[in-house]
Amino acid sequence: MRVISGIAEMTSFSQQKTAAGLVIGFVPTMGYLHPGHVSLVKQAAKECGAVVVSIFVNPTQFGPGEDLAAYPRNLKRDLEILDALKVDVVFTPEAKAMYPEGYGTFVNLETPLTGKLCGEFRPGHFKGVATVVAKLFNIVLPQKAYFGQKDAQQCIVIKKMAAELNFPVNIVIMPTLREKDGLAMSSRNTYLSPEERKAAPEIYQSLLLAKKMIEAGELRTEKITSAVRKKLAGLQDAEIQYVAAVNSSSLEAPVLLSGEILLAVAVKLGKTRLIDNILLHIT
Amino acid sequence: MRVISGIAEMTSFSQQKTAAGLVIGFVPTMGYLHPGHVSLVKQAAKECGAVVVSIFVNPTQFGPGEDLAAYPRNLKRDLEILDALKVDVVFTPEAKAMYPEGYGTFVNLETPLTGKLCGEFRPGHFKGVATVVAKLFNIVLPQKAYFGQKDAQQCIVIKKMAAELNFPVNIVIMPTLREKDGLAMSSRNTYLSPEERKAAPEIYQSLLLAKKMIEAGELRTEKITSAVRKKLAGLQDAEIQYVAAVNSSSLEAPVLLSGEILLAVAVKLGKTRLIDNILLHIT
Repeated sequence: MRVISGIAEMTSFSQQKTAAGLVIGFVPTMGYLHPGHVSLVKQAAKECGAVVVSIFVNPTQFGPGEDLAAYPRNLKRDLEILDALKVDVVFTPEAKAMYPEGYGTFVNLETPLTGKLCGEFRPGHFKGVATVVAKLFNIVLPQKAYFGQKDAQQCIVIKKMAAELNFPVNIVIMPTLREKDGLAMSSRNTYLSPEERKAAPEIYQSLLLAKKMIEAGELRTEKITSAVRKKLAGLQDAEIQYVAAVNSSSLEAPVLLSGEILLAVAVKLGKTRLIDNILLHIT
Repeated sequence: MRVISGIAEMTSFSQQKTAAGLVIGFVPTMGYLHPGHVSLVKQAAKECGAVVVSIFVNPTQFGPGEDLAAYPRNLKRDLEILDALKVDVVFTPEAKAMYPEGYGTFVNLETPLTGKLCGEFRPGHFKGVATVVAKLFNIVLPQKAYFGQKDAQQCIVIKKMAAELNFPVNIVIMPTLREKDGLAMSSRNTYLSPEERKAAPEIYQSLLLAKKMIEAGELRTEKITSAVRKKLAGLQDAEIQYVAAVNSSSLEAPVLLSGEILLAVAVKLGKTRLIDNILLHIT
């Protein structure tokens, strides 16, 4: 396994592999890897001739007052995990190489999509995400890139960005992995106190409650979101940021649920912001 | 010579050529070709194994009230010119394929650069330029792309965009070609009435006057731009949009000229907006 931090060296590696006829699979991460990331890497290894994983805590997707400085990092452990998975390259660029002084080019989705759900609470977040993913695609030159469904809105934004800017990259979305008690895996779970960790599975339970109601025939969006809110209201020291039952492409809330529906919530448990979602197909 | 209008077909052509080890040279144009374009194509043919020329009048770089509908088009003649130059592919995408309904992804340079000179008079223009060039780079996948120095600010914006988004594309800038009387070649020259056409070379003459003054030792920016303005004031039915003597990277005007200087003007002659520039190195 090679660890590359230089941008030109990374591109040159990819160009050589592509010239040799290999398909490059790419897993962009912010590090502090958990089994969700591992599932993406394993899928990439299954489908591609060379696997590149990036570890980069991207400053442009954090807002003022967010957890950029506190974001958990453990490069040594990450490299051990990736080495065991026989990844070809771990790409670890420096922030000052990615965003040199005077940096000014941003990729922005001028669409209502990016202002909804997480976008409402994290202004500028998806501009930072779209920009760094576009940059990483140009540096790593993958044919396939892998993202986790846990970040549902990010998946939608990246798919739209890649399609609209015509990147020759196939975006693969993999299912959310969960702890045994149902909590969606996330690097941010490490922030939780023992009490918060114990309470956190209630988030997924609230989504399962919504699913059960829908399966029992309740299609009124307002009834579903109220029931989820009511269940989440039982959480101590929690701030519900949003509870959404929306069209999974437009993120618009219908009056009556139908078609592809994203049930998504964001909750601040103490100081830790957690998100989770499930997709439902309603016929 | 192949004429390709499908985006997927274009990308597939380029991927095959790249896999075969050829360097792809790309000349993006809005058509209505003149010898300036031809010089770009010839340079690309000299340096690359395959040459792709795009012809696309990009709607997103025209503002409201600008000349999108009137922009001169003559595909038949363009194809004859390019066929004679033994271009490999002419890429002629449809606007609705480049910007399908609901399109929202834009590449924007959040820097003072894009608000100066032409940017002041054409708000949003460089966002449209950066966006379409990023899209075309992803579709055509060139290693080299060729632009004309006549659009000086566009060259600066594209170089910055390509570098900052890490496109693996070498940007080549070729000198402005001129008519015998000095008028910079431009597809928009066709708009000029016979009287306007006769007066138009005065624009280049005003730049040469500035150059002569600088060579004679005048380095006060204000003296230079005043002299140019005074010379241009002699033009009938003309509106001077800007006269700039600026640092060729930052586009900032110094008090005293030094280093790499861009002398640039934009003049509306009747209804036709003409731009021209020269670069000077002041030691």
